[in-house]
Amino acid sequence: MTLQRVQRNTGGKLLVGQAGGATAVINSSLVGVIEEARHSQRIDAVWGMRRGLEGALQGEFIDLTSLDPNTLTALAATPGAALGSSRHRMTDDNAEQVLDLCRRNDIRAFLYIGGNDSADTVHRLAGMAAARGQELCAIAVPKTIDNDLPVTDHCPGYGSIARYVAIATMDSAKDTESMPTMYPIKIIEVMGRDAGWVAAASALAKRSTEDAPHLIYVPERPLSPEQFVRDVQRVHGEVGHVIAVVTETMRDQRGQPFADPRSSAGTDAFGHPLLRGAAETMVRLVQDELGLRARYDKPGGLQRMATWCASPIDLAEAAESGRAAVRLALNGATDRMVTLVRDGDEPYRWSTSSAPLTLIANRQKLLPYEFLTGDGRGVTEAFRRYAMPLLGPHPLPEYVRLPADTGLEVR
Amino acid sequence: MTLQRVQRNTGGKLLVGQAGGATAVINSSLVGVIEEARHSQRIDAVWGMRRGLEGALQGEFIDLTSLDPNTLTALAATPGAALGSSRHRMTDDNAEQVLDLCRRNDIRAFLYIGGNDSADTVHRLAGMAAARGQELCAIAVPKTIDNDLPVTDHCPGYGSIARYVAIATMDSAKDTESMPTMYPIKIIEVMGRDAGWVAAASALAKRSTEDAPHLIYVPERPLSPEQFVRDVQRVHGEVGHVIAVVTETMRDQRGQPFADPRSSAGTDAFGHPLLRGAAETMVRLVQDELGLRARYDKPGGLQRMATWCASPIDLAEAAESGRAAVRLALNGATDRMVTLVRDGDEPYRWSTSSAPLTLIANRQKLLPYEFLTGDGRGVTEAFRRYAMPLLGPHPLPEYVRLPADTGLEVR
Repeated sequence: MTLQRVQRNTGGKLLVGQAGGATAVINSSLVGVIEEARHSQRIDAVWGMRRGLEGALQGEFIDLTSLDPNTLTALAATPGAALGSSRHRMTDDNAEQVLDLCRRNDIRAFLYIGGNDSADTVHRLAGMAAARGQELCAIAVPKTIDNDLPVTDHCPGYGSIARYVAIATMDSAKDTESMPTMYPIKIIEVMGRDAGWVAAASALAKRSTEDAPHLIYVPERPLSPEQFVRDVQRVHGEVGHVIAVVTETMRDQRGQPFADPRSSAGTDAFGHPLLRGAAETMVRLVQDELGLRARYDKPGGLQRMATWCASPIDLAEAAESGRAAVRLALNGATDRMVTLVRDGDEPYRWSTSSAPLTLIANRQKLLPYEFLTGDGRGVTEAFRRYAMPLLGPHPLPEYVRLPADTGLEVR
Repeated sequence: MTLQRVQRNTGGKLLVGQAGGATAVINSSLVGVIEEARHSQRIDAVWGMRRGLEGALQGEFIDLTSLDPNTLTALAATPGAALGSSRHRMTDDNAEQVLDLCRRNDIRAFLYIGGNDSADTVHRLAGMAAARGQELCAIAVPKTIDNDLPVTDHCPGYGSIARYVAIATMDSAKDTESMPTMYPIKIIEVMGRDAGWVAAASALAKRSTEDAPHLIYVPERPLSPEQFVRDVQRVHGEVGHVIAVVTETMRDQRGQPFADPRSSAGTDAFGHPLLRGAAETMVRLVQDELGLRARYDKPGGLQRMATWCASPIDLAEAAESGRAAVRLALNGATDRMVTLVRDGDEPYRWSTSSAPLTLIANRQKLLPYEFLTGDGRGVTEAFRRYAMPLLGPHPLPEYVRLPADTGLEVR
């Protein structure tokens, strides 16, 4: 592997930040960075930026070098971005400011834990540093529950939310199965910006037609309200109740949000629409068009914060991604992202590598065609083989059903 | 204790059903019933009714007598009502039908695991059986996440949902704390029909002003939209972000649902309104009135199904409530509900007792005055002392925050 090399660090500080949506394991990556950096005699100090670029632009840094081991252990088990995160879009002026600040404070490594937008930020910062001849190793540490970064096999954060959504679907189904005549239709709304990786994970516990989910809706397959109503009607006729899992950003064939247009909430700094989810609209459709009672579960932020079901594999990969980023910087690499490599499936084995940010920034990896069934409402065995190992060694609980008929003679 | 006695069982069958909303521990009560009944030589068979009264009216029974031990163990760890549940309101004709069916099939004990409405069903069935001179021990096993049954110290199901909501509030707060400038306001909508027990539990992890929740809204304290907006504005000014926990059935001072009136969804068989929750309305209020971005988490059915955070105390109490109901029936008691008694707080000790259903049916135990702070937006130490032991021995995770200021000299 040939890395783009800049001058080797012979001291200087390492600056680390967290960006984009938080996850259950993003602090694990932060702890990985801190621990690896503290082991190196060539790094003078580890600074953390508050609220990503927002804080960096104002010089809001904290010293992470001397955090005690107990705090680090607790931090790795605390969900959310402990440094604070942001979605601030870096202008060229911002980049110059950050680079000036790095030079004034002898910061020679800039590590940013985030997703697609953060990869773009790191890429641009690396380019501008190179253009002005400033020594700065700018490295992205992957993090996104959306699992939509290219090159890397998967993203830290995904294994844990996949486990959450698989268990939530099992749990929510048990709620509906308990009283199917009262509330036969359940919509579970899950996260996912443009990709259906999270929704797809809802099927990881499914073993039979009766098992939930019965319908999965992902952004890769647009959906009309009419088709949705037909799907629900069909499954209700076949199974007696329906569990449908839908990505919050679901759209119809014309690209319009599958959500009540009245509830649009503008766009974020990157121009991504801030949509209310689709579940509210779906519940109303089911009630109005089919006259069936429907409810929805919208775990919202809970699904990406649930350390109780964090995948041990995911936690380990997140921490190692942070450590690998430090090693890349120590080797003088810049403009790269750490990647996860799948070395084997049974048993699952993995390692880290890295890739140039030009291959990653502003690109998205959507669910490939072979991971969805023909009608797009279910997942394939190929997807299960891909996703299941990421949930860890004891991924899902074992629930039972009572036998449907025990042949009693009732008088 | 004097029990109303009917003729002692000298054989005959025991019929058990589950009613109302399912919980993470309602199957634990069912397993308690089955195990205790199988130990008695005076019970010929244990039958389960499918979907509560709905199935009973159609003679849809299954034989639970010979379930193997592995199935029973797995069943106790499976959330939801494995027999199926219902909210069917029993008419007098229905009661006669059920009593006829019990007589024809030599059923001499009728155990119903449920909440207030189920207690009423059992009470009426017991009265009608007595009136027609039919031997039937009709016993209610308490079950409701609402925790609103009188006489009993608390209800099986509450300790587990209380733990879920406390952890969910911690998790959701970490999400908001990660990016307070992006989405400063978070509404968490939780269950609770007329009582705020579940919402109150959100405060069990709170130790400081900064900790979530900052505002708790319970049905016992009506709320106007204007007051809600003022509350959010005040806390946002003080803390910088706001986590508000609201009961789904929140109402204003005129008794009107604190929810978008367009989303009303009729009433159930008991005349309780089927409301969409308040969170959607609150998010819109915050955005429209304060111009602040808001999101909501609505765990819905997940909060009462989460076996992963079921309280070990709750599981044990649910199982023992089932066993105690069988013993009551074997002693010839009828028209009673099993109750939980708090024998001590440090360490927490408990036992079961029972009470006549006349003291329970159609009554509700709301949050007492002394459990809420003066402004009604928080809970008191008295509530913490009451609720905390119910969560079990290792109730809540330990999360950390990084120090706000480490006194760095940034150039």
